[in-house]
Amino acid sequence: MKFISIDEAIKKGMGKVSLRGWVYRERGSNQLKFIVLRDSTEIVQCVIDKDKISEKEWKDANKLLIESSVEIEGTIAKEKRAPTGYEVKVSKLKIIHFAEKYPITKDQSVEVLADYRHLWIRSRKMTAIMKIRSTVFGAIHEYFRKNMYYEFQSPIIIPGGAEEGPTLFEIKYFNEKMYLTQTWQLYAEAAMFGLEKIYTIAPSFRAEKSKTSRHLTEYWHAEVEATWINLYELMDLCEGLIKHVIKKVLKENKKELKLLERDIKILEPILKKKFPRINYSEAIEILKKKGMKVEWGKDLRTIEEEKLMSDYNTPMFVTHYPKDAMAFYKPRDPKDPRVAVCFDLIAPENNGELAGGSERDMDLNELVDTLKKKGEKIEDYSYYLDTRRYGSVPHSGFGMGVERLVKWICGLDNVKDAIGFPRTMTRFKP
Amino acid sequence: MKFISIDEAIKKGMGKVSLRGWVYRERGSNQLKFIVLRDSTEIVQCVIDKDKISEKEWKDANKLLIESSVEIEGTIAKEKRAPTGYEVKVSKLKIIHFAEKYPITKDQSVEVLADYRHLWIRSRKMTAIMKIRSTVFGAIHEYFRKNMYYEFQSPIIIPGGAEEGPTLFEIKYFNEKMYLTQTWQLYAEAAMFGLEKIYTIAPSFRAEKSKTSRHLTEYWHAEVEATWINLYELMDLCEGLIKHVIKKVLKENKKELKLLERDIKILEPILKKKFPRINYSEAIEILKKKGMKVEWGKDLRTIEEEKLMSDYNTPMFVTHYPKDAMAFYKPRDPKDPRVAVCFDLIAPENNGELAGGSERDMDLNELVDTLKKKGEKIEDYSYYLDTRRYGSVPHSGFGMGVERLVKWICGLDNVKDAIGFPRTMTRFKP
Repeated sequence: MKFISIDEAIKKGMGKVSLRGWVYRERGSNQLKFIVLRDSTEIVQCVIDKDKISEKEWKDANKLLIESSVEIEGTIAKEKRAPTGYEVKVSKLKIIHFAEKYPITKDQSVEVLADYRHLWIRSRKMTAIMKIRSTVFGAIHEYFRKNMYYEFQSPIIIPGGAEEGPTLFEIKYFNEKMYLTQTWQLYAEAAMFGLEKIYTIAPSFRAEKSKTSRHLTEYWHAEVEATWINLYELMDLCEGLIKHVIKKVLKENKKELKLLERDIKILEPILKKKFPRINYSEAIEILKKKGMKVEWGKDLRTIEEEKLMSDYNTPMFVTHYPKDAMAFYKPRDPKDPRVAVCFDLIAPENNGELAGGSERDMDLNELVDTLKKKGEKIEDYSYYLDTRRYGSVPHSGFGMGVERLVKWICGLDNVKDAIGFPRTMTRFKP
Repeated sequence: MKFISIDEAIKKGMGKVSLRGWVYRERGSNQLKFIVLRDSTEIVQCVIDKDKISEKEWKDANKLLIESSVEIEGTIAKEKRAPTGYEVKVSKLKIIHFAEKYPITKDQSVEVLADYRHLWIRSRKMTAIMKIRSTVFGAIHEYFRKNMYYEFQSPIIIPGGAEEGPTLFEIKYFNEKMYLTQTWQLYAEAAMFGLEKIYTIAPSFRAEKSKTSRHLTEYWHAEVEATWINLYELMDLCEGLIKHVIKKVLKENKKELKLLERDIKILEPILKKKFPRINYSEAIEILKKKGMKVEWGKDLRTIEEEKLMSDYNTPMFVTHYPKDAMAFYKPRDPKDPRVAVCFDLIAPENNGELAGGSERDMDLNELVDTLKKKGEKIEDYSYYLDTRRYGSVPHSGFGMGVERLVKWICGLDNVKDAIGFPRTMTRFKP
């Protein structure tokens, strides 16, 4: 008989079924053995009656520890008391593998779970998160492709990046020093001249010594670059992306959100509201009114972002940050030369910055001046500056940290749970 | 008036249009200036008549060098002699940026084009390849998702991998030595216990000193891992993937294939034929009959693969390679203990190995023995070996080099042109 998934078996609801998976829980008596079986789709209770199977099968059943893998034949029927409302009366039991005693028991510390990440990854919680993560990746691809963007990949291994030097990981590249990329942007701006509208989802790396719940040294970065669009069109694109992803997760992953005890009433209204847009100077005024000591000119810190977001339950765009605090490629606003034409998108519920973007400075001289002011070597940027020598056009782009988005959507405490095998300053195994 | 793409303008075929893009070619006389304009979609000839525009516009037009960016208003109509069969009579010309003299002229050497990759990437040839590449990525995602696979990402930064030591790139990770991954596999086998059917498209790295037309140190790797499938089901999955990708490219990229002068008559028949499947021992016999000196026991080299493929115009599976020449996780064939249950998929037209996969050894003792025989430290594999301690199940997986596939589909001479910014032992800038 053909194997079906546990989810399919429950939908069938009655009759003979063949299932396979892993022992999620087990308990028993002299006569009856109860196994909760799990596969990637669901769990279901299976009851083994000593009198209904062979002696060997009964013996095997009693040796089954958690995470043992089995194939089962039986009859499924409603059973209110079982965890998913159904029970399988087992008529045949085949052991695929007897597990050793599972090292993960209830209420383990975060550090133990991190050490056993290669096993913890199969937990129902992590599986639910990873399913949502898969939906998020798919939705990002879908959104950009629907909007006629080409997928493009910038190199991961890059020559000495200058501005970001201290936060770059160094690679021994044969006889050269090379580095791990932090963004696709400088390469994307070159590729854009052929394809015009491009996006990527690729790993980015930051050798930051932060030990916060929001920082990974290795994370996946969704980035976009497009000709002929300005800051406001860019924000529309970004807002559209976030909404598309949330809509898709709400459609595909209700069950996983429930398992994670994530209240979808927090996510649903976001689809209907326009994300507020304020500029940096307004943000500073709001913070002052809220009693914070802030000074015009510095980038907003976490504590300020959180204060600012305390009145909002959708993400919010903050635009036009002080030019001098910004990356060199963010252009000066011709209407207010103190600020740059850029945005940060800040997530609610203390999830920090989700995305950041800007128009790109088209002016070769301004770029060179800014780089010099920042103490950079111009020759390190020669290929990039070439994009301003040969037919520069107005263009804009943003980048979004995918794990930050997954963390927020799932309502996780720590971004480490938004990726399969997290990398931080202190955590890099397994 | 709203800007439309050149492709849309040509489809419209007559009437007023507003276009923007880059000067692809230019020539002129005292009275008429001809510009071939390009954007990401197409090229079109634009003619500027001195008497039909302002003096300033005429002056500007005569300063236009290749790759200058412009906005144009005019009237499009059929014109047989123009490169794409249409011509725009220009009524308005706005310069966005006067390009400097473009450094790439006709018939540049491969090395010069590589030095100017950041500009060459915008050429029509590279743009066509990158569009096909984008289709290939999209088709891979589509295929796996259609088949109910979850997208999962393994870490890029990994602790000391042992077996592949000499071909790993080393990273300075704070105070640790870490490495760039070559495959997602060992992590994927752990994640599979929760999600069961997973795939990825992610960068992989190989510090190989090869200088062939097929090797990159940084390449994109499509990989899959699934519970409960055997070698034959795995080959079906792989064959289905290749066919789905080719079908999609033939549907979406006829124009790009034509621009690359790639004969679609070579690609079309592949969709209808079943890929031949022979085993390694049969391959050795065939090679002997073809007069090659080959010995049973060694992995096939390029020269042998090419000889073997000389009679075939579809990819071919070669299965059951000698166990001792294979990676430790490929299981011994119970029916013939000399060989492993594995395959390589070899591409036609001298494109080498496209994909490789296998069932995975479930037997903890055999894995440990093989690792020891290969001189590995068992503790380096402890997290991996745990997957065989807790409910191991039959499973299989394969990996495919995406650039190899793009190279073959596009009919490229060198895999370096199948990626935006290639990385090899000798080429790593820009």
